[in-house]
Amino acid sequence: MDSFKQAELPAGASIRYLMVVLLNTLGVLLIMVDKESSLYRIRHSLAHVLAQAVLEVRPSAKLAFGPPIDTGCYYDFQFDEPLSSDDFSDIEKRMKKIIRQKQPFAQRKLVGAEAVKHLESQGQNFKVEYCQELMERGNPEIGFFQNGPFEDMCEGPHVEHTGQIPEKSFKIDSLAGAYWRGDEKNPQLTRIYVLAYETREELDDYLKRRKLAMERDHRKLGRELELFMFSDEVGQGLPLWMPKGTVLREELEKLGKEEEFKAGYERVATPHLAKEDLYYRSGHLPYYKDGMFPPMELEGEAKYYLKAMNCPHHHQIYGVRPRSYRELPLKLAEYGCCYRYESSGTLAGLLRVRSMSMNDAHIYCTLDQLHQQLTETFQMALDYYRRFRFEGVRIRLSLHDPEKKDKYVENPELWKFSEELVENVIKNLGVEYDIGEGEAAFYGPKIDFQARTLLGREESISTTQLDFASPINFDLSYVGEDGKEHRPYIVHRAPLGTHERFMAFLIEHFGGAFPTWMSPIQVRVIPVGEGFFEYARKVHRFLRDKMVRVEVDDSSNSFSKKVREAVTTKIPNILIVGADEQEAESVTLRRYCVQEQVTMPLAEFGSRIDKLRCERIMDNFPDVTV
Amino acid sequence: MDSFKQAELPAGASIRYLMVVLLNTLGVLLIMVDKESSLYRIRHSLAHVLAQAVLEVRPSAKLAFGPPIDTGCYYDFQFDEPLSSDDFSDIEKRMKKIIRQKQPFAQRKLVGAEAVKHLESQGQNFKVEYCQELMERGNPEIGFFQNGPFEDMCEGPHVEHTGQIPEKSFKIDSLAGAYWRGDEKNPQLTRIYVLAYETREELDDYLKRRKLAMERDHRKLGRELELFMFSDEVGQGLPLWMPKGTVLREELEKLGKEEEFKAGYERVATPHLAKEDLYYRSGHLPYYKDGMFPPMELEGEAKYYLKAMNCPHHHQIYGVRPRSYRELPLKLAEYGCCYRYESSGTLAGLLRVRSMSMNDAHIYCTLDQLHQQLTETFQMALDYYRRFRFEGVRIRLSLHDPEKKDKYVENPELWKFSEELVENVIKNLGVEYDIGEGEAAFYGPKIDFQARTLLGREESISTTQLDFASPINFDLSYVGEDGKEHRPYIVHRAPLGTHERFMAFLIEHFGGAFPTWMSPIQVRVIPVGEGFFEYARKVHRFLRDKMVRVEVDDSSNSFSKKVREAVTTKIPNILIVGADEQEAESVTLRRYCVQEQVTMPLAEFGSRIDKLRCERIMDNFPDVTV
Repeated sequence: MDSFKQAELPAGASIRYLMVVLLNTLGVLLIMVDKESSLYRIRHSLAHVLAQAVLEVRPSAKLAFGPPIDTGCYYDFQFDEPLSSDDFSDIEKRMKKIIRQKQPFAQRKLVGAEAVKHLESQGQNFKVEYCQELMERGNPEIGFFQNGPFEDMCEGPHVEHTGQIPEKSFKIDSLAGAYWRGDEKNPQLTRIYVLAYETREELDDYLKRRKLAMERDHRKLGRELELFMFSDEVGQGLPLWMPKGTVLREELEKLGKEEEFKAGYERVATPHLAKEDLYYRSGHLPYYKDGMFPPMELEGEAKYYLKAMNCPHHHQIYGVRPRSYRELPLKLAEYGCCYRYESSGTLAGLLRVRSMSMNDAHIYCTLDQLHQQLTETFQMALDYYRRFRFEGVRIRLSLHDPEKKDKYVENPELWKFSEELVENVIKNLGVEYDIGEGEAAFYGPKIDFQARTLLGREESISTTQLDFASPINFDLSYVGEDGKEHRPYIVHRAPLGTHERFMAFLIEHFGGAFPTWMSPIQVRVIPVGEGFFEYARKVHRFLRDKMVRVEVDDSSNSFSKKVREAVTTKIPNILIVGADEQEAESVTLRRYCVQEQVTMPLAEFGSRIDKLRCERIMDNFPDVTV
Repeated sequence: MDSFKQAELPAGASIRYLMVVLLNTLGVLLIMVDKESSLYRIRHSLAHVLAQAVLEVRPSAKLAFGPPIDTGCYYDFQFDEPLSSDDFSDIEKRMKKIIRQKQPFAQRKLVGAEAVKHLESQGQNFKVEYCQELMERGNPEIGFFQNGPFEDMCEGPHVEHTGQIPEKSFKIDSLAGAYWRGDEKNPQLTRIYVLAYETREELDDYLKRRKLAMERDHRKLGRELELFMFSDEVGQGLPLWMPKGTVLREELEKLGKEEEFKAGYERVATPHLAKEDLYYRSGHLPYYKDGMFPPMELEGEAKYYLKAMNCPHHHQIYGVRPRSYRELPLKLAEYGCCYRYESSGTLAGLLRVRSMSMNDAHIYCTLDQLHQQLTETFQMALDYYRRFRFEGVRIRLSLHDPEKKDKYVENPELWKFSEELVENVIKNLGVEYDIGEGEAAFYGPKIDFQARTLLGREESISTTQLDFASPINFDLSYVGEDGKEHRPYIVHRAPLGTHERFMAFLIEHFGGAFPTWMSPIQVRVIPVGEGFFEYARKVHRFLRDKMVRVEVDDSSNSFSKKVREAVTTKIPNILIVGADEQEAESVTLRRYCVQEQVTMPLAEFGSRIDKLRCERIMDNFPDVTV
């Protein structure tokens, strides 16, 4: 068995597997890096046990690769006759038996030619092929591990004996199609996935989280709640926001605009394209060309490119006339829509798209202002994440590598100053952080905010960058108090990321149940019978006049079906109206996440909803009382 | 002299001439159509008088064309020695003398060859060339008009004698360069412009309006007030909205969104590009290809085009799933940004751009709903125009031409029904309208709203179209109450036009002085001296907490300079604070357009500004009392 390999995406991957891969890739991957960890050894050993058990049932099976992965392990086989999930329980039983036998793992090494011969004698043609490749790559010796009657080509490491594999916390999960070495021109194989953790609790927890993740998958909820869509005729990776999704976008944008207004930002609006000259100046061409859409050539004029980022446009506005130190910090903000040419295979829902609207801003400031500006920028980001109740917010600070002089702007003093500055700012925030050496942008240190989602995975939410290079490229300056010209510094920031990514994140974080202030439909009025349609409409008018997004369910459905539907649609406020309510000009409120119903005067509900909206209360969390 | 020709744009046209041409083209053109009108005759005759007087001063001058135009007339000459504006008064005197001589205009006709011979004998080579062309076009006889000693090749009509030209209401206006027949490969000529009206008052009025138009030119004000900019590196016709202009855009957008929310519109957000397939289906390709940016070719995928309109994207959203009659009318709205490839020569400020954000929406409805939907659409447009105090709002209804069967969808009944329907709706509005036969879109009647600006010119503000063709092209349907599939009708509407055009219009309409609710800076606080900076900042904080766009002028300028600057920047509310105000916690308000100052408690000003903003009061008009 070969050493750790990242699972490839199976050709006909179902949404379920995409989710698993997503979870794996984003979440638990970090713990897998440590090959010496006991969980890694368990998973790696379990792959051998799986193959051993499968060979008992299908002695003629050909073995391909069988790596540990971040939820357990898998093994690829070529069968004469297909396997089905009905075989799982038999194989599992055999695996448990092998575990109970406490078979020790023993390593031996064969020189290349011998190894090939050995594998040929077993008729394992895939192993033979890979063994030959390893020899060609210059490995003189090939490692094997044996336990009981089973032996596999493998570099380890393993547990000492199979008895160290906890038998109650693994589970054969599923089958999938795969190709030998991931290439569809090669023979098709059957992949068996096994989940494996150190304890039963961890396995159960993973299964629970996965179920939740599948229920909350933003693509699934996006479709069900009619938030966004894709169209073959428009093109891949280009989401069309449907009315309900557009409400979410606009509410988020409104929040961003208000917070930015309070923080002294000024808004701009710039076109979605520019001449190639601009991108040569910014350095995006030719270095980032592959990430940009191909150019539009206007005859006799120039090539135009769709913008992949907003900065060069903002620099044009900064540079339109001389600036004075009195104008700094100048903070230009735009919820700008950018276009990036991601290859079609990598596109995934809203998480990887070709058009994205970014909560972008550029802060032009003096050296003296940097500390304050960075502090405020990070504080704003943290305020957002606290508001949305993101958990486990951490910072990753990416620094430059002084050894790699070609990769970074050369200015040791500036690097030292700015990296210390940024780290100081972060320390003062009191947020946990770790450091990535050599991960900075070429023009300055980079700061990523990471948060843990409700599903337990850690995700990068936003990036802030300090930039000393663009002011030079774009010849940006200001006249200081000393009457001389100086270069400003630029902070690139987007605490809410892109609408696309942030919304994918929020949809899954909230499971599609948004707080009243964001919710596409804030209130649905359900009359208990036809006799109260008129009163329901009165309630509707009253709320509509307050610009509340309200609907009346005056369909012919039964009352209970109406309530069920409103709950399924995750409407935050259901107002039930019948004889008592009509009589008292009141409403009976049923909050989305709360069992108990409350009857209150209509006017009181009016004030309540005003408060929910104005104060942006997160009433989608049941513990929030209003 | 030849018959009426539209003035070409002189090669090195100054902004002044662009303005004149603009005024001419947009405004007074209509009255010129009537060749028999007395003003047309006067202007036409005056061109002859001008040439006659010029020949007295420059006997060797060669005459080219000399048409009447909508502000008077011009004549193109080739001179041996250049003319200057110093010569104007001499020429004007001679023109007046000719007028007082009451020289009768007499017509004669010559057969072609004779005419050429006659012109050759006078050495008028340009006239010879044109005369030959007229013969080639098949004119057997060429007309000439003589008055006094002067004769010009011309078809008339003219006044009876020069004495009928009012001598006090014309004025030689200016010189400009021009080319023979507008082609820069031809000899260069000198064009003399003359302004001519029937009365002195009309001439003065025109001069006043032109001065105003130049002062209020949106390009000039856009620069001075820092509303928008263009950048060579970004590209022609692609405005970048600076912070102050972005406020205007956003306030307008907010108004649009609120009104549309009240009217039951739902918002969507769609990408700025799509595959060519979509545009072949919509019919934009290949028919509108020249108006679109060239495609971006994604290898192995498709050609993508920037959208020139939003409709095809909206149709995708309508068509994403089956629709029921219960969902109609469905009104999808988007302030969508479209890209059109206007040739670089035609670009002009914000009036003709390549990127435009449209106040767009598409109403999908049943036949029975059309009347109501059109009525509400027009009513919303009229409400906007009333709010902005546009004057002389009229409608132009464009109908199809039943003779031209190839130009229109063939469905006589549908045309009859819909044209009658639209005309009925318009009649009920009580707005003046006229009819353009044969000007409809190929898929349905078109309704343009025109308004007269403060400058007296009539401009098309918005277009509404009724569309029977797209539902077929996009196979859009709904299930009716009868359980059967039906085609919806579509109304395309954009009452606020595009941001670019509407803003150009508003900037000029308001002369850059916006009402408080729109104004980029709503309040500037001016302390009468340094001792009151602190109180000024307190006022600033108080207003800023209410999300008011407020500034303090704490510069070292003198008080009077500060006030002057605030007035120049057209800030609607200047708050002056000194000892009395600080003592009483009050402010002294100076409204932009009002002489008298009022002192009031700060809290009262707070309520006042809340009211100005919430109710969107047009306090930039002095007659509006708050």
